[in-house]
Amino acid sequence: MKMFNKVVIIGTGLIGGSLGLAFRKQHLAGCVIGLSRQQKNVRLAKKFGAIDNVGASIEVVADADLVILATPVDTIIDLAEKIAKKIKPDCIVIDVGSSKARIVSKLSALIPNFLGCHPLAGSEKKGIVNLKDSIFKGALCIITPTARTNPQILNKIKLLWKKLGANIVILSAEKHDFVLAFTSHLPHALAFSLISAIPHQYLALSSSGLRDTTRISSSDARLWSEIFLSNRRNILTALSIFQTKLTALKFALESKNKIRLGKILALANKKRAKLLELSR
Amino acid sequence: MKMFNKVVIIGTGLIGGSLGLAFRKQHLAGCVIGLSRQQKNVRLAKKFGAIDNVGASIEVVADADLVILATPVDTIIDLAEKIAKKIKPDCIVIDVGSSKARIVSKLSALIPNFLGCHPLAGSEKKGIVNLKDSIFKGALCIITPTARTNPQILNKIKLLWKKLGANIVILSAEKHDFVLAFTSHLPHALAFSLISAIPHQYLALSSSGLRDTTRISSSDARLWSEIFLSNRRNILTALSIFQTKLTALKFALESKNKIRLGKILALANKKRAKLLELSR
Repeated sequence: MKMFNKVVIIGTGLIGGSLGLAFRKQHLAGCVIGLSRQQKNVRLAKKFGAIDNVGASIEVVADADLVILATPVDTIIDLAEKIAKKIKPDCIVIDVGSSKARIVSKLSALIPNFLGCHPLAGSEKKGIVNLKDSIFKGALCIITPTARTNPQILNKIKLLWKKLGANIVILSAEKHDFVLAFTSHLPHALAFSLISAIPHQYLALSSSGLRDTTRISSSDARLWSEIFLSNRRNILTALSIFQTKLTALKFALESKNKIRLGKILALANKKRAKLLELSR
Repeated sequence: MKMFNKVVIIGTGLIGGSLGLAFRKQHLAGCVIGLSRQQKNVRLAKKFGAIDNVGASIEVVADADLVILATPVDTIIDLAEKIAKKIKPDCIVIDVGSSKARIVSKLSALIPNFLGCHPLAGSEKKGIVNLKDSIFKGALCIITPTARTNPQILNKIKLLWKKLGANIVILSAEKHDFVLAFTSHLPHALAFSLISAIPHQYLALSSSGLRDTTRISSSDARLWSEIFLSNRRNILTALSIFQTKLTALKFALESKNKIRLGKILALANKKRAKLLELSR
């Protein structure tokens, strides 16, 4: 079912490319146009069937019905002013950035029909070469409307994500950023720091535990520098709560308190079981 | 090819059970006897074909050619005195514990033909119900001889692990414990602390990043309390090195130093790529 005539995707990486592929496979758009700073990316996106055509310039947004901003966080903010002056008054603009408060505050002010979205479908395997229209199936998509969001637009975008197979959660941008600081940004900060702490010569003497615990430290450095900086305060809060937990474990270890240590680990077991149960 | 007449496995959990299954499938032993404090475990081990028979008591070690200690770390140490008095003079004893210095020092003193082993084939999915003879294929097995280890016994046990498909590394028990503090015990300590730091009500708002980063926080609480305490000092060292890395990331974030942050993450990317390359 066609939901939009012309869709423009700016940023044809893993998420942008996979979205294009899903739109085209499900015939959700009359045409899908891709734009990227890297010509290689859009050419590959076209080759992989993720877009119908490569946009010649940012001017292609002029007659778009939906513009999807799928670039790193800072670029989403930079793009806002450029596209705000060019789009039709009824054009819907969404982004798929991993932090929301800064983006939503800036873009809502410039673009009346803007709606922040965050599909939790990213991967450390970035880039168009890893595209898959199925990455949204069963994934969580957090949508962050404001008090001024048009309910019709919210419903239309909810329907879009449902068609892509995502489970929708509605949160304020601020709440989103606080929650994700714990459930996504903190694990990334720890994975980056953990791999940094392993002496090079010991890397070979490890097993799947280290491999899995550090998987997301392969996530793109530039993308993640921007996510970290865009959600600094919440991440620092999450880090300090993590620190109290690590200190508790360390104290139990230092004081050889086997009972205390056993309790900490047993509680962790229980919470991880809950996480697994929820993700089934 | 039969390498041993009678093999006794004490502790028929994931590793002990999988070893038994591998021994039986490859006809490496005349018979495999299982012993466990939990009768349910040995009964299941027999049912799953991991052992030929359930041992009636510790006395079954009397005519064994090989005894494998596959219990938690503290129990391995407790068992040493009991079996030292009962075994034949030429009986070989190995353990499969995750920390080595304490075990090797205690057991070598009591049992002349003792050899410490650590197959890096464990899993957060513990217990006999998860047994698989293939868990040793391609896994690393660290063997920790002492200056007094009989070279013939070392060669025989190396051959055994090779037959099971493991890649062998020889380290001193002390070196093993220092290395594993980084590559295994540190990731476990962080995974347990990370899941502890996530507020319960946010668990549902997460994706594969949190799931993978915390996988090993499902590891058995009792087993891991003992591993942590048996390698306290090295783990505290590893934790303090991790702490300096986390602090560096935190400072870059606090001071909004995008260049510094980008460099930290890019170096982490590079080291993780190396880890993946080494584990291929």
